Amino acid sequence: MLGSIELGGTKIICAVGYEDKIIERQRFDTKNPLDNIKEIQEFFKDRDVTSIGIGMFGPIDVDKDSKTYGYVLKTPKLKWQNFDFLGNLKKHLDAKMYFTTDVNEAAMGEYELGAGIGKKSLLYLTIGTGIGGGMIYNGEILQGVTHPEMGHIEVTREEGDDVKSNCAFHENCLEGLSNGPSIEKRTNKKGEDLDKDDKVFDLVSKYIAKALITYTLILRPEVIVLGGGVINKDGVIEKIRKHFVKLKTDYFDIDDVDSYIVKPKLSNNSGIIGGFVLANKLEK
Amino acid sequence: MLGSIELGGTKIICAVGYEDKIIERQRFDTKNPLDNIKEIQEFFKDRDVTSIGIGMFGPIDVDKDSKTYGYVLKTPKLKWQNFDFLGNLKKHLDAKMYFTTDVNEAAMGEYELGAGIGKKSLLYLTIGTGIGGGMIYNGEILQGVTHPEMGHIEVTREEGDDVKSNCAFHENCLEGLSNGPSIEKRTNKKGEDLDKDDKVFDLVSKYIAKALITYTLILRPEVIVLGGGVINKDGVIEKIRKHFVKLKTDYFDIDDVDSYIVKPKLSNNSGIIGGFVLANKLEK
Repeated sequence: MLGSIELGGTKIICAVGYEDKIIERQRFDTKNPLDNIKEIQEFFKDRDVTSIGIGMFGPIDVDKDSKTYGYVLKTPKLKWQNFDFLGNLKKHLDAKMYFTTDVNEAAMGEYELGAGIGKKSLLYLTIGTGIGGGMIYNGEILQGVTHPEMGHIEVTREEGDDVKSNCAFHENCLEGLSNGPSIEKRTNKKGEDLDKDDKVFDLVSKYIAKALITYTLILRPEVIVLGGGVINKDGVIEKIRKHFVKLKTDYFDIDDVDSYIVKPKLSNNSGIIGGFVLANKLEK
Repeated sequence: MLGSIELGGTKIICAVGYEDKIIERQRFDTKNPLDNIKEIQEFFKDRDVTSIGIGMFGPIDVDKDSKTYGYVLKTPKLKWQNFDFLGNLKKHLDAKMYFTTDVNEAAMGEYELGAGIGKKSLLYLTIGTGIGGGMIYNGEILQGVTHPEMGHIEVTREEGDDVKSNCAFHENCLEGLSNGPSIEKRTNKKGEDLDKDDKVFDLVSKYIAKALITYTLILRPEVIVLGGGVINKDGVIEKIRKHFVKLKTDYFDIDDVDSYIVKPKLSNNSGIIGGFVLANKLEK
């Protein structure tokens, strides 16, 4: 059996299964790293897994040649900063482990068993409290020196949009202008409490569409999968598609935008199933 | 012996050699496709090559499964538009051919035998009359549905810079705001006639640095190689590095910007030598 862990900013999911079958799963709140490692260990210790795929909120060190491989890096979650997650987990669990970001894990799930079936390349983006992306190309996670930070690319502000960015580093990045909290900041309401036709969704969709144009020009994926809380709001993906078609001009062709920009086929399980896919790579 | 062809908007270079040794080369002006094919055929016919690497100005169809594989697509050079370049060349020359863009070809040369030696990933950009990029990752050219068009990503305009874009499709893309002709349009002088400290170079360098930040966040290459006429101007690469360091903030680390953003190691021969590298892949 295969193991899978998805570590997000607020919750951690552990599961066992194979392919797209989740046999058992358990959810924990994200607290401090040592307590969470104990819970993870408890979950897996009586379940016979030989390999575990791990998707972790970033930034993390994914360079196997690095002295800090498996560490959490400069995260705003201070308890996790510079914590040797993989090393500590390995002390307590005897299994092979594939360590990558949460978005890369979800991207891999969608690539192998979801929206990417039959395709050679797929870009997965999560648009929620944070914005991040993972690109799978010919079955492999694309990462150079380290994993990408696609959510932090600059987008040009729309006239009159002078809200303060939600990113501590960038006044004009996609995450700072289009994540969940930016919607709240502009409207003083939670996204789920807003009318789906509130103009804030049009604005945010336009920023996301701008970023999708940039990703397309650089990566040319066969499909872009959008997950995360902002995308779950009724009508948002349609607004993104509409802006995308307008912004791309005649410069490049996309046969069918509805099948180019899609929601996850594995719904909320892209990450966990991606963990099985990654674990399975270690079995070979 | 291996063959190499580099087709640019104004000149075509044919060469024979191996590795980074150019044994013979000839230059032709880019005219109309059938006359150029005749010249290329003449050059190679008495030189015994079994494989030829070809780098062609884009956009071109590089999808081997496509009906128009090997064609030139919507180029402003109307005589070349929709021309079956590869098919016509194969009619006249009996050799295996690797067909890609001019920037991918140069990227491959630098990756294998230039600035990329010992590295797993390299991004090559040419910044001249046009702006284009090619990414090599684990020895392979990165292309999804088709080759990237990295020069056309949006960059945010600087305040007061209201020159008309040089791109027919985008009012605010990197190529439109930072290519060679944009320098001329802003100053009414050719780039080579301007003082190296003219403020236009600072502006253009800032736009280029913004784009390099975006490429870095998405691709995380180990090294970025900058070629092309604009980069040849004294002081420009230093200005780009300076803006890059300022714009990246503390968000990510680059150990040494001078070895991250570099000029081609193969100087003007990255393309031709890249052609040999590509041809050599067909020999295996």
